[in-house]
This record gives sequence, structure tokens and C-alpha cells, in this order.
Amino acid sequence: MKEFDFINKVIDSVKPHPKMILGPGDDTALIKNSEQEGSLITVDMLLDGTHFELAKTDPYLIGHKAMAVNISDIAAMGGTPYACVISVALSKGDNIQLERIYQGIQDICSKFNIALAGGDTNSWNGPFAISVTLLGEPHPKGAIKRSGAKVGDIVYVTGALGDSLKGGHLDFTPRVEEAKILMDKYNIHAMIDISDGLASDLNHICDQSKVGVHLVGEQIPQTPSLASLPDKDQALKKALTDGEDFELCFTVDEETSRLIEKECPLKIPLTRVGRCVSESGIYLSTNGQKMTRLDIKGFEHSF
Amino acid sequence: MKEFDFINKVIDSVKPHPKMILGPGDDTALIKNSEQEGSLITVDMLLDGTHFELAKTDPYLIGHKAMAVNISDIAAMGGTPYACVISVALSKGDNIQLERIYQGIQDICSKFNIALAGGDTNSWNGPFAISVTLLGEPHPKGAIKRSGAKVGDIVYVTGALGDSLKGGHLDFTPRVEEAKILMDKYNIHAMIDISDGLASDLNHICDQSKVGVHLVGEQIPQTPSLASLPDKDQALKKALTDGEDFELCFTVDEETSRLIEKECPLKIPLTRVGRCVSESGIYLSTNGQKMTRLDIKGFEHSF
Repeated sequence: MKEFDFINKVIDSVKPHPKMILGPGDDTALIKNSEQEGSLITVDMLLDGTHFELAKTDPYLIGHKAMAVNISDIAAMGGTPYACVISVALSKGDNIQLERIYQGIQDICSKFNIALAGGDTNSWNGPFAISVTLLGEPHPKGAIKRSGAKVGDIVYVTGALGDSLKGGHLDFTPRVEEAKILMDKYNIHAMIDISDGLASDLNHICDQSKVGVHLVGEQIPQTPSLASLPDKDQALKKALTDGEDFELCFTVDEETSRLIEKECPLKIPLTRVGRCVSESGIYLSTNGQKMTRLDIKGFEHSF
Repeated sequence: MKEFDFINKVIDSVKPHPKMILGPGDDTALIKNSEQEGSLITVDMLLDGTHFELAKTDPYLIGHKAMAVNISDIAAMGGTPYACVISVALSKGDNIQLERIYQGIQDICSKFNIALAGGDTNSWNGPFAISVTLLGEPHPKGAIKRSGAKVGDIVYVTGALGDSLKGGHLDFTPRVEEAKILMDKYNIHAMIDISDGLASDLNHICDQSKVGVHLVGEQIPQTPSLASLPDKDQALKKALTDGEDFELCFTVDEETSRLIEKECPLKIPLTRVGRCVSESGIYLSTNGQKMTRLDIKGFEHSF
């Protein structure tokens, strides 16, 4: 298939969207502004062999994941995604199912009401790569940064951790709806999505908020597959360090935490995992033992 | 270098920008809206071996080009770029000079007053890839589409064609300033930037405007290196089909064309190359001979 043929096919299949004044097919698209003062913007590139194994993965899920990791970033700011552009690099001669990738993209765009505003399709001698840029509408209360946590704040996690081991890193649901409910109802101090592992991502909140965190090991929610591991220490370590759970981790003050636990506002579990403290670092206690400081080594790409 | 180290270094080096409410370093950035109803948005991915040869190219120019091709797309809509996000895939173990690439990016961002709002840096076993997403402020008169050309319109080209042969595809200056002057002063019907070759890109205007074009071979502006070729037919063919000149091609009505030629509004050459006609296709006459229809084969990636 020629590039223009495929591009034309994608252009024809893009649905009108209230945010899209001019869609794909010109030098640029033209999209309506957000209703707040600004727009959230994020980009994530996913690479064959690093973020997925193309040969072993349904291409539909690759399209889904490429969008979902970005949607999760918008959710982590308390926002709502509204438009995206996508660039892809295809291996020459590799019969990759681009249409199925785009189907995965289009389905999650429909689900989250995101305008697919444009794209750039290329072929080369390298492996498959896809980059998604996503724009989001901030919540009227503003964007929730990593830097807003305060000493005494209670730390919460949505859902359960450890699913990425079982392929959950491909087909997860970004927590946009949950973030919106939390934003609507409560005063959230700091928030992040768990993409590198709870300990590593919480460390970003600590660094930027100039706080530390005391975590209680027994309270960290584990997926059933993790909880069923015979080695409980190993299970806890995985819950703390495995990346790509894409759950939300956030902090609120103690009064808000009482309200949250009284109201149980989400359809998914919401678990108190620890508390912000003044001494820097992340500390863990298990079985009522003394806190030990964690050596933070999330999933970090080195080169 | 660890990914976070480099990212932190980039974050530290990003300058404040009036458009940037929240810069790199959180889950997303937050940028101010455009002043018009919407924002222009475009994405282009550049790949080692396809769009440049990393081993033979100053990395500074790769950073420059990755930005410039997107800036050129915003210019082609008559707009002004204001913010970007960038994703890169680095070859593991390859000593590529990422800092120099970013210097190229930052310098052109400074020159065009573009906020560098965020990025995503990855390493993998594939070759180097970079994707830039750029937002632009539309001109108060609106976005100039490819579909606005009318029968009888005069077709113009900025600058001269053929420089990409001599490496001009790496260090060209996107025609933002020229597009703005043209937009401010005249009623532009249709516009595109020449990225695939004049014939191929003009063909997009023809397709979307439902017109054809009569080109006059002698009027097509050639760079000195092209004009000095002994084979004039070959030089003309190259001027028509070589990609990546990144000059503007646009159409105006005849009255406006007289005004433009009287006023000479640009500091660079502006050349009338042909006229829009009702019969579809692109036709070429040389030396006063009969028009012959061109077989359009721009630089098209096939896979």
C-alpha cells in the first residue's frame, strides 16, 4: 500500500468531532481551544521491543496502549483528553497490521471522545515506532501537579498494583473518570499516574513537593495474581516497583481523607497506602516493624 | 547517562515562555490557548536513514530540521507557531549527541518564539527517530487551506527550488514571516509548503480545490546550483519533483496578483509560475510549446 493511499483511508475514516474545526488532510489540523485558560499537552513514544513485542502482540492493543498511556497522563493532572495527533514509523516489508493498530486508536478515541486531528506515516528500515501527542482540557479547579503534597497528607492509590505482569500494561483503562470524580468532589493536593512503579512515581511527588512518605506494606493493594504469590516479600516488592499499572496515586489532607473514606466515591477500590512526612525519602513498614528507607530504582531507561 | 538525568538537564535548560503556564517536569505541560478560536496542530516524524543520515550529519541540523519541517506546515496555513512537544528514540550504545540535537531544537524555538513544553526520551535497539508536534496560532483571517484555489487564480512560489539537493533540506528557514506578510496584506486562496516537490504538492491543491494548473517551465524559479546544470530539461524536472524545498506555493486571484507584483512585499523572490484552470491535472509548457500533462510522482513513501 502506498503512504497516500493509507493516509487517505485514515482521513476518510476519521469522524467529525465538535473540537475539530479542520481535520486531517491539510498541512495542519485546526482544533478548538479548551474552555479553560490553557490546554494540557503530553507526548509518549512507544517502541517495538521496549514497550511491547510487535511479533507477539495484537496490533489493536498496541494502538490502544499508545493512546492509553497519554490519556493516563492527562488523567493524572485531573484533566479530560480532547484531541490527539499521531506519528508512526513502519518497518519496510513488515506486514504489520496498521489498520488494526488504527482501529485500536480509533476505538479508545471514541470511548474517551478524543478528536483524531492528524498524523504522519513513514516507513523505514527500523522497527515499528509510534508517538502520540494528546491535548487535554484542565479541570476548572486547575491542573494537579506533583508538587502540591504537604506534610501530613494521606497517600491513596486507585485500583490494584501488579497487573502489568499479566499483560495489563496493554489493555488498561486510564483513570480519567475517576480523576474527574475526585477533582469534582475533593481538594486533591498532588497526583501522578503509576507508569514506572509506585515507589518510583511516588518519589517524583516527594522530590517536587519536598516531602517524604511512610508507606504501610500491608495496605498496598495487590492484584489477585500478585497476592497469590507464595513469596509475600516478592509480591510486595513487585507491587512497589513494577511499572505500567497506570493507576492514580494522589495525596489529600487528613480531613479530606476522612470524607473520601466515608463516601467511597469511586466504582473501583481506593486505598490509603501511607502518609507524607517531613523527612525526605520513601520509607516502608511491614507487619508493624520499623520503617526502612527504600532504595528507589523504578523502571528507568538508561543509555 | 540515565534517562532521568538527561530529562532533568533538558527541563533545567527550558526557558520560561509567556505561553507556558506549566512547563516540562510533570505528567503533562499546561500551555495557554491561542488568541483565535482554535489552534493549528501538526506532527512530523523524522527517521535516520530516511530523512537524514545520522552518521553523516551534524546532530544540531537534525534538531533544526525536526522543528523546521513542522514550522513550515504552520506557515503553510498562514499561522504562527507557539508551542511544541518532542519525542525521541535513541539507539542504545550509539554515542549520538543528544545535547547537540536539543541545542538545534532550542535555537530554532528561540528564533521563532516557540515554547518547548515537553518531551519523551527513550532508548531502544532501533535507529534514531524524532517526532515533533507543533501548535500554531491561526492568522486572524483564518487558516489557509489547500482547497481554496479557484479557476483563474495565479500560482506563486516563494524563493527558489532545488536547494534540497545541496543539503538545503537540513538548514532551511521556514517561511513563517513571509506567510504572515502575505496574509496581512492579501487575500490568499490556497497555500501549501513544498515538502514533496512542487508538482506533487501543487497536485494536493488541485485535488482539494477541484482545479488544474498550467505551469510555465521557464518561470519556475531554480536555485543557482540547479540553474547551472547543463541539462536544462533535467534541471526543470528536478525543480518540479525534488522534495523538501519548504518554500510556499499559493494562489490568489488575478487582481491580487497585480497588487503583489506591484508591491513586491517579500525580502525573498516571489515568482508567478502558472495559473489555475478548470481541467484537472497539472500541465507544463516550455519554450512556448503546447502544454503536456505531468505524471505526478512526488516523493512518496511506499510500504
